[in-house]
Amino acid sequence: MITENDTIAAPATALGGALAVVRLSGPRSLELCDRLFRGSRRVGDAAGYTLLYGNLVDGTRIIDDVMVSVFRAPHSYTGEDSVEISCHGSRYIVSEILRLLIRNGARMASPGEFTARAFLAGKLDLSQAEAVADLIASGSRSAHALATNQMRGGYSADLEKLRGELLRLVSLLELELDFGEEEVEFADRSELLRTMERIDTKIGELMDSFTLGNAIKEGIAVAIVGEPNVGKSTLLNRLLNEERALVSEIPGTTRDVIEATITLDGITYRFIDTAGLRETSDTVERMGIARAYESISRAQIILQVVEAGHGDVTPISVREDQRLLLVVNKIDRVDEAVRKSLPQEGCIPLSAREGTGLERLIAALRETIDTTRLDAGETVVSNSRHYAALHEARESLRRAIEGLDHLSTDLLSEEIRQVVYHLGTITGEITNDEVLGQIFSKFCIGK
Amino acid sequence: MITENDTIAAPATALGGALAVVRLSGPRSLELCDRLFRGSRRVGDAAGYTLLYGNLVDGTRIIDDVMVSVFRAPHSYTGEDSVEISCHGSRYIVSEILRLLIRNGARMASPGEFTARAFLAGKLDLSQAEAVADLIASGSRSAHALATNQMRGGYSADLEKLRGELLRLVSLLELELDFGEEEVEFADRSELLRTMERIDTKIGELMDSFTLGNAIKEGIAVAIVGEPNVGKSTLLNRLLNEERALVSEIPGTTRDVIEATITLDGITYRFIDTAGLRETSDTVERMGIARAYESISRAQIILQVVEAGHGDVTPISVREDQRLLLVVNKIDRVDEAVRKSLPQEGCIPLSAREGTGLERLIAALRETIDTTRLDAGETVVSNSRHYAALHEARESLRRAIEGLDHLSTDLLSEEIRQVVYHLGTITGEITNDEVLGQIFSKFCIGK
Repeated sequence: MITENDTIAAPATALGGALAVVRLSGPRSLELCDRLFRGSRRVGDAAGYTLLYGNLVDGTRIIDDVMVSVFRAPHSYTGEDSVEISCHGSRYIVSEILRLLIRNGARMASPGEFTARAFLAGKLDLSQAEAVADLIASGSRSAHALATNQMRGGYSADLEKLRGELLRLVSLLELELDFGEEEVEFADRSELLRTMERIDTKIGELMDSFTLGNAIKEGIAVAIVGEPNVGKSTLLNRLLNEERALVSEIPGTTRDVIEATITLDGITYRFIDTAGLRETSDTVERMGIARAYESISRAQIILQVVEAGHGDVTPISVREDQRLLLVVNKIDRVDEAVRKSLPQEGCIPLSAREGTGLERLIAALRETIDTTRLDAGETVVSNSRHYAALHEARESLRRAIEGLDHLSTDLLSEEIRQVVYHLGTITGEITNDEVLGQIFSKFCIGK
Repeated sequence: MITENDTIAAPATALGGALAVVRLSGPRSLELCDRLFRGSRRVGDAAGYTLLYGNLVDGTRIIDDVMVSVFRAPHSYTGEDSVEISCHGSRYIVSEILRLLIRNGARMASPGEFTARAFLAGKLDLSQAEAVADLIASGSRSAHALATNQMRGGYSADLEKLRGELLRLVSLLELELDFGEEEVEFADRSELLRTMERIDTKIGELMDSFTLGNAIKEGIAVAIVGEPNVGKSTLLNRLLNEERALVSEIPGTTRDVIEATITLDGITYRFIDTAGLRETSDTVERMGIARAYESISRAQIILQVVEAGHGDVTPISVREDQRLLLVVNKIDRVDEAVRKSLPQEGCIPLSAREGTGLERLIAALRETIDTTRLDAGETVVSNSRHYAALHEARESLRRAIEGLDHLSTDLLSEEIRQVVYHLGTITGEITNDEVLGQIFSKFCIGK
């Protein structure tokens, strides 16, 4: 798929809006569009970056009034001649337009094929291409910032710099090899060590940033736990109302574990309501409960909800990598004395029913995640493929560092070449069809 | 809302695609867009029907790479200066762009407000504007043809012709009134009668076409009935597989009545599977069954499914306005003799399991609906508001016809003016804010 040079077509917008856009890219885009388009001018005669209004027809039958955007190679997203047909947002019209384009010689594009072509044309590197998919999926200010930073290429520049330094080391080492018997040392070993250690630190920083990047991208998992009737569901509903942006139930989640994504202060949290947890002999229900416990074990934050005025609170134990937030609910039901007796630190008093004290909870949730690095515009790794490549790169680098004294120059050089190789897979300097296929298959159709 | 002249913004595409489009219309569209757009050129300097590539920014923060389509009054959908911003299809980006546009002085558009402006600018009449919404909702070839015909204005021309004839009659009658005492008869009464009767016939034809138009627009309701285990669900699943286009479960239907829309040969059917019907003492289930029977009573076609080789078949009784199709299922399970004993007419032998004989069923379904009128490009009324207006018009016309001999000239003239009035409400020659508000509120946002 990746190397073909035919003309591809796909819907670029979701069904259900007022407008829909069908995208066409490849050498025959303009000619194909002209076969169906009846306007004041021909698409083939139009300059790039112009719009044409007319009808899209199947013989004498008018399919729709459309607006055609014309792009000429290389000044398009894919670098090829491209056309975007903006039609009325009817699924019937979109399917008819695609049917006609395909009948006239276009091919239905695979997911991500437009971006794959942009990558192959050198319009963007691989990590930037991946950021396009992340950008489309981004649902919060922080996820958007993450994808935008990556798309702008700051990350690619960082990696390019590291690769440059490493390639300089390799060339010095290989120069030694050229001189063979002469025992010359072009690469000063102590300088070599310092450079490699600096690069190791840098790769380590990038890898560390993955915890933040992944949490932002996937949403931070928060389990709400507590005895029945302490107000867990009420609290969740309150938080849902708090959200300024859109709220969505994640499709595909089971009914046993209610998961709702809520964006608060630019960060997306995936709340797991374990309200349904109870002793039961029902097999199906028990399976649901097992899944709920599994969700809790994966949560990064545990929100323990207790009722105010019900005696001393025993915080539940959490793993070292989890954060516990203790919420004392129903403070509207207790008198001033009880309220004053609550510890100043380590607990969040609120009334889910009345909506008071929520801002403290939101602030506490926000504090669990340190976005300094992201806010400063520094590179934050959010892609697990990149994380794996960084890991591989560091493994090789460590072998080179440890073997500096006893490894032969050619083995040393080979290890450093491996570091260069793995870093190169991130931006796509080094790649293969299978990897590309995997990456772009995760894209949506029309991108 | 209708008469304001401010600048409105709205998302024009559904969330979830590779691209999204935000639409902006009104006198400040270009200026507003320029406040956020950073490209090689200013939007305000661009000619109409051109595209600009650049960044959309909030101060120094880049929101997205965008493509801006520029339209200048009066050469736009609304007739006003307009801009369409094509961005990545992220809900966060779309909401950020809208937020920024609104912060800079745009107003969030009401549903249908762009089309309402197009109507007020005289770009299309009211029945054409309504056809835009129908076009977007169209999911089959016939529903598409219905909306396209109406949007092309053939219907409007028909109505305009009728109004013209009626206004000529009124002017002749009113001339008589001007001459007052003189007892002149400018409008020959027998010619008047012939004209009115011809118009009555024409309005009657339009009203009759509503049965077809409504069925095409809403989908033809088909109830599948029969004893348990005759293969009703298997048949429905077969038909679902048969469909070339998309299949959708109608959202919002209860689980008691399974309704699936299937488009066969260009016509949409709403199949009601009554498989769940049985005697029960459960209150909730009984409520569901009551709803199922209600659905059956509303069906236009009843598909009675029986099992081959199970003795004589008693067709169930249906109302005069309903059509009964008798399906003899499981013919793969009976021998040749039984198959031959089936009547040649009046029953459809098939095997839902093996998928044989389905083409006869599809043909029989298709025959229940006569689309000659639609195929010939004649006007088919599909809008219930239009149907009501035609009904009102005919009531007045009949009063005029009946009163021709005994009504005074001014009362006669007044009745005919009423006919003109009601016909005028269809195309929007006569209208008011309340009616417009009702019509456009049914549109989607961004159209």
